[in-house]
Amino acid sequence: MEYKIADHIAAMKPSAIREIFKVLVDPEVIALSAGSPDSSAYPVKEMAEVGDEIFANEFVTTLGYGTTEGYTPLREQTKKRLREKYQTGTDDDDVIITTGGQQTISLFTQTMINKGDVIVCEEPSFIGALNAFRSFGAQLKGVPMDDDGMRMDLLEEVLSTTKNVKFIYVIPTFQNPSGRTMTLERRKQLLELAKKYDVLILEDNPYFELRYEGEPVATVKSMDTEGRVVYAGSYSKVLSPGMRIGFCLANKEIINRMVVCKQVSDVHTNMYFQMLVSKYLDKYDLDAHIKEICELHKIKRDAMLKALEKYVDPRVTFTHPNGGLFIWGELPKGYDGFKLCQEITKKKVACVPGNAFLTDENGVSNGFRLNFSMPSLENIEIACQRIGETVAEFLK
Amino acid sequence: MEYKIADHIAAMKPSAIREIFKVLVDPEVIALSAGSPDSSAYPVKEMAEVGDEIFANEFVTTLGYGTTEGYTPLREQTKKRLREKYQTGTDDDDVIITTGGQQTISLFTQTMINKGDVIVCEEPSFIGALNAFRSFGAQLKGVPMDDDGMRMDLLEEVLSTTKNVKFIYVIPTFQNPSGRTMTLERRKQLLELAKKYDVLILEDNPYFELRYEGEPVATVKSMDTEGRVVYAGSYSKVLSPGMRIGFCLANKEIINRMVVCKQVSDVHTNMYFQMLVSKYLDKYDLDAHIKEICELHKIKRDAMLKALEKYVDPRVTFTHPNGGLFIWGELPKGYDGFKLCQEITKKKVACVPGNAFLTDENGVSNGFRLNFSMPSLENIEIACQRIGETVAEFLK
Repeated sequence: MEYKIADHIAAMKPSAIREIFKVLVDPEVIALSAGSPDSSAYPVKEMAEVGDEIFANEFVTTLGYGTTEGYTPLREQTKKRLREKYQTGTDDDDVIITTGGQQTISLFTQTMINKGDVIVCEEPSFIGALNAFRSFGAQLKGVPMDDDGMRMDLLEEVLSTTKNVKFIYVIPTFQNPSGRTMTLERRKQLLELAKKYDVLILEDNPYFELRYEGEPVATVKSMDTEGRVVYAGSYSKVLSPGMRIGFCLANKEIINRMVVCKQVSDVHTNMYFQMLVSKYLDKYDLDAHIKEICELHKIKRDAMLKALEKYVDPRVTFTHPNGGLFIWGELPKGYDGFKLCQEITKKKVACVPGNAFLTDENGVSNGFRLNFSMPSLENIEIACQRIGETVAEFLK
Repeated sequence: MEYKIADHIAAMKPSAIREIFKVLVDPEVIALSAGSPDSSAYPVKEMAEVGDEIFANEFVTTLGYGTTEGYTPLREQTKKRLREKYQTGTDDDDVIITTGGQQTISLFTQTMINKGDVIVCEEPSFIGALNAFRSFGAQLKGVPMDDDGMRMDLLEEVLSTTKNVKFIYVIPTFQNPSGRTMTLERRKQLLELAKKYDVLILEDNPYFELRYEGEPVATVKSMDTEGRVVYAGSYSKVLSPGMRIGFCLANKEIINRMVVCKQVSDVHTNMYFQMLVSKYLDKYDLDAHIKEICELHKIKRDAMLKALEKYVDPRVTFTHPNGGLFIWGELPKGYDGFKLCQEITKKKVACVPGNAFLTDENGVSNGFRLNFSMPSLENIEIACQRIGETVAEFLK
């Protein structure tokens, strides 16, 4: 039979990058296309230890229904850590545990967006967020970035000329895909503009603790005094993604609405891993673990930056991220990043073309995203050499 | 600041039953309000055993990102079991693993519903589904039931007079909240009417294997030859709900669309419990386990039916469910089930008033739902006695 799919779901095209991802089944392909930490960065031994304890003592509890808001001790630990370590969150805020950071984006969008409402995003931005916005019928407006993050002059231009903007979506620290970090000055301007035009900010901050150099920059939420910033966080990048434990910190009124949406979305996040993370936080030093991950990832970032410099034509520019998981390459103006990635694929290296991260799905981008956390040091070297060869032919 | 919540989320009122649920924090209250199996029915030892094995051998795998469709072996096992044991599913169908049965309802609704589209439901029906439908802006139309399930004459009346019906939502077996089972004859009529008016059917079937007497009735999906039925299933009621493992069996085109929605909803369901369920199915006999649960639950159902007959004024009628978790009571016409439940609460028994299950949130119902799987046999006796006392005063 013929199905009448909902308008905005039907409008979501099978992504062009799927073609490129198909090559990943070939074990010889070096994937620079992922968005995970190095799997050797998961604290497997410690997690298995607390996991065993739960099996022994509280397994029946984890098997029953939990509350939609999340496991209370984990909510309290999350709130306390954000508050004490990052001055983020006030007495008016609350935390909901979500099924990964992605669910925070999805639940908040469902809570706020009427079909046709506008969400303003960095251009380029995280494809998972853009598609979540699209899946609820939102209109997207992109604001270009420079090395200091989203351009505030262009943001004001959009805000002053666009009706029905509900919120601004930013990944201020080690942005996906660009690796860029928004400066403190820009963050303050962002908050001022959000106030001036009375819109909310969704601050998506999954990478910020993966800092390999430079000084931390205050979260946008830490400067928020009126409940204008909704903060999406995750344990995926500092512990592991497969367990699907994220969170949202926001004004209680927003959290209460998101709880209603979560209840009808998946009732609650799996209890076992909520308890496991909670016990891990009790028993082990997460900050010490993060320090270890950062050392591991820094070596890989440095290796990739060095290899790119060594092998790739200097007309191609690369960001120098102070943390996170991604380096962003840009071809000279007029060249198509998608076509380059297709060519790179033929040399058995997978990376993600920039057009995947555009608010306009039909747009063309001269950019491409490289992940440095997953491949081995050896494969980083090989992959960059192949990219260099491809670029040489491509720019000829 | 003042938040501009999305229209259909803002329209979802804090449920009236929350007031009644507040009493549940009092440990002296006997809860007949839940929707879980008896926790002694979880195969804790066996699950812990396979869980330990995963810790020992494959824990790192479970911690990385998984595919959105779900863990391939579990998808295959689920498909095979439905096909071989229940003749449910064809070569044109596929399975997606969801974060509990609730997520199937939510993803399918998001996939199909434009704001204002109509979903036809049994009246009364499962509140979690009704609220999921509301959260995507659907209009609800209720069709009354009798002991044989949804009334097909009234369904046709609705279908022939209502525009933009996208699908019919039914819980054909041991329905929540009524405990009723739709007869085979009605199921065939349902499918015929769906064809005639070209609408889909969402068959929500989480309880059907918890049968304590009588012969199994074929699933609606098993009679579907053209991909008109979308089947929502779950491991929550036969293994345990806290792990959040459900599934959807439907035509591949629908599954592909739901995968897109799931990707932006929570990326994938937690890997660990997908593997745990898969290994449980490999290593143990789920059917034998279900048989054990059924024996346990039958004793409780019988105890509650007997105690209700003993203590409660016969002007109040109760369904005699052949399985599942719920008995549905009805006061004589003109009496309000919500008011009765308020009175019952004062005697430290919690049950769910019928109005919670209506498509019209402001409607009045003479019904109320009792769960028999969770309370102990002793508490079933005490609770029914208290209900009997309350009814006696209430009908005076």
